[in-house]
Amino acid sequence: MNTIKVLSLLIAVAFMNGCAPSPSDTVERIPFVEDLIKQMTIEEKVGQTAQITLDVITQGNGHSSNEPLQMDTALITEALVKYHVGSVLNTANNRARDVQTWHHVVSSIQKVALEDTRLKIPVLYGIDAIHGATYTAEATMFPQQIAQAATWNRDLVYQAAQATAAETRASNIPWNFSPVLDLGVDPRWPRMWETFGEDPYLISEMGVEVIKGYQGNDLNSSTTVAACLKHFIGYSTLASSGKDRTPSEISDISLREYHLPPFRKAVESGVASVMINSGLINGIPVHSSHDIITGLLKNELGFNGLVVTDWADIENLHNRDKVASSHKEAIRLAFNAGIDMSMIPYNYVQYYDLLVELVHEEAVSMERLNDAVRRILNLKYKLGLFERPVVEPNSAVFSDAHKKLAYLAASEAITLLKNEAGLLPLSQNTKVLVAGPNANSMRTVNGGWSYSWQGEKVEEFAQDYNTILESLEIKFGKSNVVYVPGVEYDFGGRTYLDEHQVDIQAAVDAARNVDVIILCLGENTYTEKPGDLSDLMISENQEKLAIELAKTGKPIVLVLNEGRPRIIRRFADSMDAIVQTYLSGNHTGDALADILTGEVNPSGKLPYTYPMFSNSLVMYYHKHSEQSKTPEGMYDYGGGVYHQFGFGHGLSYTSFNYSNLVVSQEEFDENDELWVSVDVENTGEVAGKEVVMLFSSDLYASLAPDVKRLRRFDKIHLNAGETKKVTFSISADDFSFINAQGNRVTEAGEFTLSIAQLSETIKLLE
Amino acid sequence: MNTIKVLSLLIAVAFMNGCAPSPSDTVERIPFVEDLIKQMTIEEKVGQTAQITLDVITQGNGHSSNEPLQMDTALITEALVKYHVGSVLNTANNRARDVQTWHHVVSSIQKVALEDTRLKIPVLYGIDAIHGATYTAEATMFPQQIAQAATWNRDLVYQAAQATAAETRASNIPWNFSPVLDLGVDPRWPRMWETFGEDPYLISEMGVEVIKGYQGNDLNSSTTVAACLKHFIGYSTLASSGKDRTPSEISDISLREYHLPPFRKAVESGVASVMINSGLINGIPVHSSHDIITGLLKNELGFNGLVVTDWADIENLHNRDKVASSHKEAIRLAFNAGIDMSMIPYNYVQYYDLLVELVHEEAVSMERLNDAVRRILNLKYKLGLFERPVVEPNSAVFSDAHKKLAYLAASEAITLLKNEAGLLPLSQNTKVLVAGPNANSMRTVNGGWSYSWQGEKVEEFAQDYNTILESLEIKFGKSNVVYVPGVEYDFGGRTYLDEHQVDIQAAVDAARNVDVIILCLGENTYTEKPGDLSDLMISENQEKLAIELAKTGKPIVLVLNEGRPRIIRRFADSMDAIVQTYLSGNHTGDALADILTGEVNPSGKLPYTYPMFSNSLVMYYHKHSEQSKTPEGMYDYGGGVYHQFGFGHGLSYTSFNYSNLVVSQEEFDENDELWVSVDVENTGEVAGKEVVMLFSSDLYASLAPDVKRLRRFDKIHLNAGETKKVTFSISADDFSFINAQGNRVTEAGEFTLSIAQLSETIKLLE
Repeated sequence: MNTIKVLSLLIAVAFMNGCAPSPSDTVERIPFVEDLIKQMTIEEKVGQTAQITLDVITQGNGHSSNEPLQMDTALITEALVKYHVGSVLNTANNRARDVQTWHHVVSSIQKVALEDTRLKIPVLYGIDAIHGATYTAEATMFPQQIAQAATWNRDLVYQAAQATAAETRASNIPWNFSPVLDLGVDPRWPRMWETFGEDPYLISEMGVEVIKGYQGNDLNSSTTVAACLKHFIGYSTLASSGKDRTPSEISDISLREYHLPPFRKAVESGVASVMINSGLINGIPVHSSHDIITGLLKNELGFNGLVVTDWADIENLHNRDKVASSHKEAIRLAFNAGIDMSMIPYNYVQYYDLLVELVHEEAVSMERLNDAVRRILNLKYKLGLFERPVVEPNSAVFSDAHKKLAYLAASEAITLLKNEAGLLPLSQNTKVLVAGPNANSMRTVNGGWSYSWQGEKVEEFAQDYNTILESLEIKFGKSNVVYVPGVEYDFGGRTYLDEHQVDIQAAVDAARNVDVIILCLGENTYTEKPGDLSDLMISENQEKLAIELAKTGKPIVLVLNEGRPRIIRRFADSMDAIVQTYLSGNHTGDALADILTGEVNPSGKLPYTYPMFSNSLVMYYHKHSEQSKTPEGMYDYGGGVYHQFGFGHGLSYTSFNYSNLVVSQEEFDENDELWVSVDVENTGEVAGKEVVMLFSSDLYASLAPDVKRLRRFDKIHLNAGETKKVTFSISADDFSFINAQGNRVTEAGEFTLSIAQLSETIKLLE
Repeated sequence: MNTIKVLSLLIAVAFMNGCAPSPSDTVERIPFVEDLIKQMTIEEKVGQTAQITLDVITQGNGHSSNEPLQMDTALITEALVKYHVGSVLNTANNRARDVQTWHHVVSSIQKVALEDTRLKIPVLYGIDAIHGATYTAEATMFPQQIAQAATWNRDLVYQAAQATAAETRASNIPWNFSPVLDLGVDPRWPRMWETFGEDPYLISEMGVEVIKGYQGNDLNSSTTVAACLKHFIGYSTLASSGKDRTPSEISDISLREYHLPPFRKAVESGVASVMINSGLINGIPVHSSHDIITGLLKNELGFNGLVVTDWADIENLHNRDKVASSHKEAIRLAFNAGIDMSMIPYNYVQYYDLLVELVHEEAVSMERLNDAVRRILNLKYKLGLFERPVVEPNSAVFSDAHKKLAYLAASEAITLLKNEAGLLPLSQNTKVLVAGPNANSMRTVNGGWSYSWQGEKVEEFAQDYNTILESLEIKFGKSNVVYVPGVEYDFGGRTYLDEHQVDIQAAVDAARNVDVIILCLGENTYTEKPGDLSDLMISENQEKLAIELAKTGKPIVLVLNEGRPRIIRRFADSMDAIVQTYLSGNHTGDALADILTGEVNPSGKLPYTYPMFSNSLVMYYHKHSEQSKTPEGMYDYGGGVYHQFGFGHGLSYTSFNYSNLVVSQEEFDENDELWVSVDVENTGEVAGKEVVMLFSSDLYASLAPDVKRLRRFDKIHLNAGETKKVTFSISADDFSFINAQGNRVTEAGEFTLSIAQLSETIKLLE
């Protein structure tokens, strides 16, 4: 008998627009909240579902604020008292603010909410605190998610989230639009670096740590925030253009096999809120999809928290995606699909008037409206906002311990991809040429969502930290470091792609008198739509710089500082060492310098496949038919999958030997728990950390199986000469997959388990 | 009331492997065939479903044949008498044969079939006659499908198919594995050029013409062949790697909206056979998909003809795709999915033994086997093979009229993409430098499937035709033509990608003494897996040649000779004229020379979108969200869709003015037939042909609408100064689309109709 575990199917049929969804009866009933709801008018309820951006209620023109920032009490009153607005997001003028200013901003708002509104409901303030408290001047900037994933260190990810929560809440903001649990499978996507990489299991594991770190055990705390999973679901896929918010084509099978598991696990771990994918799946805008929001998220996954739109995405149903012939119809579609709160963010009066009309016309039912309001008020209640709408500023929260943690995370993220002839580590009296547009920028090591949306204001706020160049000067001594960039970004350019070919020859000339070249290439900062690209090749200027420097014959350490893997094929072979720093935050330079000199032994591993060609973008967990061997007869097929560096790749200054792979049973059934153990020995001269990864391959299955899938991992520390036994438990469930009928099943048959070069084949009995 | 026309849904659930499919009761019952089936043993029936490749029954080693080719009567007898094999395909040694040889080959086989087998059932011989009778030495090589699509001339496509059928049947082959009705939406795909381009309507229209041309009114004729639609369904999409036979991700909505219509129309037009897509859709190998083969093709579309696998694709279910744990299980899956004939092509004994076992074990039902055999024998009967298994060779079929037709098709295919300052046409006493690797090759103008699989044997067979260089020498006079290739393909290289950078400087030097450079760039020949690429950029050598020649300041006519649109962005702006020849067959050179000198006025139009960047591959019929305008507030989004040349683009030496667009009704209902008319005037100095295209845009719809879709086209001839009124009829059905529930519907609302720069908005009433 096959062990078939059927999960309910994503019903792709029969929900007609216009019907109200069934109530989510499992949403918690909090007496205090229920009492409020009973007292609320339709208008007050509608207002609670409205979220506006800060610029709307500051002194300014409604789209930008005067500086220095001043709150406008009349505008706040208009929004909160007249239109009952329940939520505010974002900073003003797209600029980080100090903790005192945040206190002023939030106090001004809560004062009106609690003193001047009829029911005295506090406002829920939300923000993008993406790798630390993005918009707080004093914040600790941790590595971005892609770099956190590269640590493969659950505890570091947890601690970074915990620190981010404390610093965000200390800024008087109790709600964080983070983490991103989208699949990082399209290297063209400008938000690739906001993900935990390409593997659903790695994403799931890291996602849970972030949520635990943000939310702690109690949201009613001065050190926790409500997390917001985003973007439910299917934002990034290898679709046609790879650009931000462009349409995805995803079968139900793939949606459930690859995209859904991290969200499922995060919902199970109690995440407080979910933001919806701004894009289309198979032509259907997710913001209008009852199947996805109510059917899959609320009913099937049992999500009882708050569902918020992405920026302007109800209006987008009308303006951009053309599935609603009016703004009013767009609101009706989105609300009936299951949206609880609209990130409007500007024209809230129109939104308010139209939703009030829809409720009066019963085109949106009172039941649906109450469900939305209940989810919103429940969160406000759980966050303790009714009792403690504002906390006093406390700059001690922004501690040295947090900074040290950010350094540690960076040092475990940075990934040594190549080290020919043991060029690294370098001795501290090496004479080095530092070149490349990423060498002397706090902006590029941080990336987008750093003190500003596109990262363009980083230099104003991060002067206390070291660029790569500054860290190298400290490490090697100023007299040992020559800096000639060769190519520089045009930071004031029209797009992030603009750069100057400053003087490649100058860099080449400077190379003559040094021992080693440290060449820092990559990308300028970006996120979302402004980060779109049309060619994954690294820029032509940077390519030329690398090729010309290689001709000097000097050893080159290529330092990559990029949000997504740009193609380096044309010069990678002539680089002696390659180090990927991703976007590791304010401590990137210091961590890199410690790694280049061997004070830190690198232990990062790629959380994605680094492609070799622009038009061959294949994940590690592809189907067998991505590769063809030459078959019999005259047909000489030779089709390969070529990568620059594989998923999970990362070198160390020591070496590890794997032996003695043991699986507790050769044959097992659906109820057995198997134990898989392996001995890992540090066979080199220095201590180091190693990520032990367990993969499985299903030899035959009713749906074409992936070549392999990550099932377990653990990061361990080994002193030189030390051996540790690593043991994983695994069971039939771990070999399940979504079959052709859309059901999650485990099928009897053989599976190969592999760790490093070792493998064992086991059999699941019928 | 909405006009909802519900087509039955692709049921994605509930068919469990192992159940036999229900019978196709609509398959014609021919008394002669029914009588045969009654007499047949299981073994004889199984043999009928087996198709082997010619090398298996020639003197040779079973995978290659001795030359000169000799049939092996003992091997034929073994296959046909002992194992009852019913079908043979392909040439031997991957080489074209003359008509006499084909007569010998087929006669040798049919002699055994009709004299030595118990039931005297003739063999069904099939071949790939892709742009003419590929494997017949005397054949007329027409433009490949992509170039035929570029003519936008239905009648030429029809006539070319008719001629191909006559020449194929004259070669004693009654079954042609053509046309390809796959979507040409992935420019990386090495079979892009085997398609009719990216538009479902254009493909549908051309597909019907080909089938009409191949099959005529009666398959029992010495001038017709059975067509074979391929590859059902979803072969090419913009999936991860873009390589041949790699997995596709296609939603049911997209499958039905874009992929299905050409196949549906072809089935309605009575096509005799269908070949199945070798790849996976959403992880499911199509060869094992009962939903697709039996559910969609046989039951829903009502296809009553023969379903054949692609090369070795039953074995591939086991060997490659791992959905069957044995070869036997693979056969069971494929047969029960609805496969009628297996293109084995080598190990037929194993196939035969296993399928016989499966039938005895009732794992494949007698009903299913009879259905397969009935479809096979019906086709043999309709082709008249029982009465006339062999025709006498008649070389008169390979006529000058066919050659003239091939020239005409080439001259209407070639597409003028750019003509700065009216550089073209050139006077015949222009002194020209001809350069580039495509200038002097019969191979590259033909492409794959030309006298050989990869096109590698073209030069042996096509010496009577002119290369581009030879045609230009005839046209301009030898003394006016200098030929310095600059870069050449390595035709003996390991892959089609290999080339020599012969001597770019020599080409540059030669440019000094000429008036104009005719630079012939593009691709060497390939198809299927060997044609995979990883980067869509044109080769680095060719790019360099173009850039260096541009520096000379001489006017350049860039002639593209390529199967798919390779990226030319880095030098396109410095080319004065650009002409796309695609793969227009043996008469490419002559047609091009006539166009360059103005004897023929170009009228080809791109049947695909010519991309500008490697990583931005977007069809013309994308969703609105592929492009973003800057929204209100601080978010400065600017995301565009950038093409080198748009779908339908193509210049003429004259100019056309469109005016007076009239739609018969501003408001209409589901029963109305609308008339759309426009006046087209030739406002230039010379006669020319123009393709009049009618597009529609659905302003709002329940599924995000495409920006526009082609609905009608017509190619007209206009003398200088002449005006013609072109009229199209259109109705509500033409505005239908597949909605979120998978149903084809037409929704009330507004639609914009556009022809050239003119547009009118009309309203479908509820």
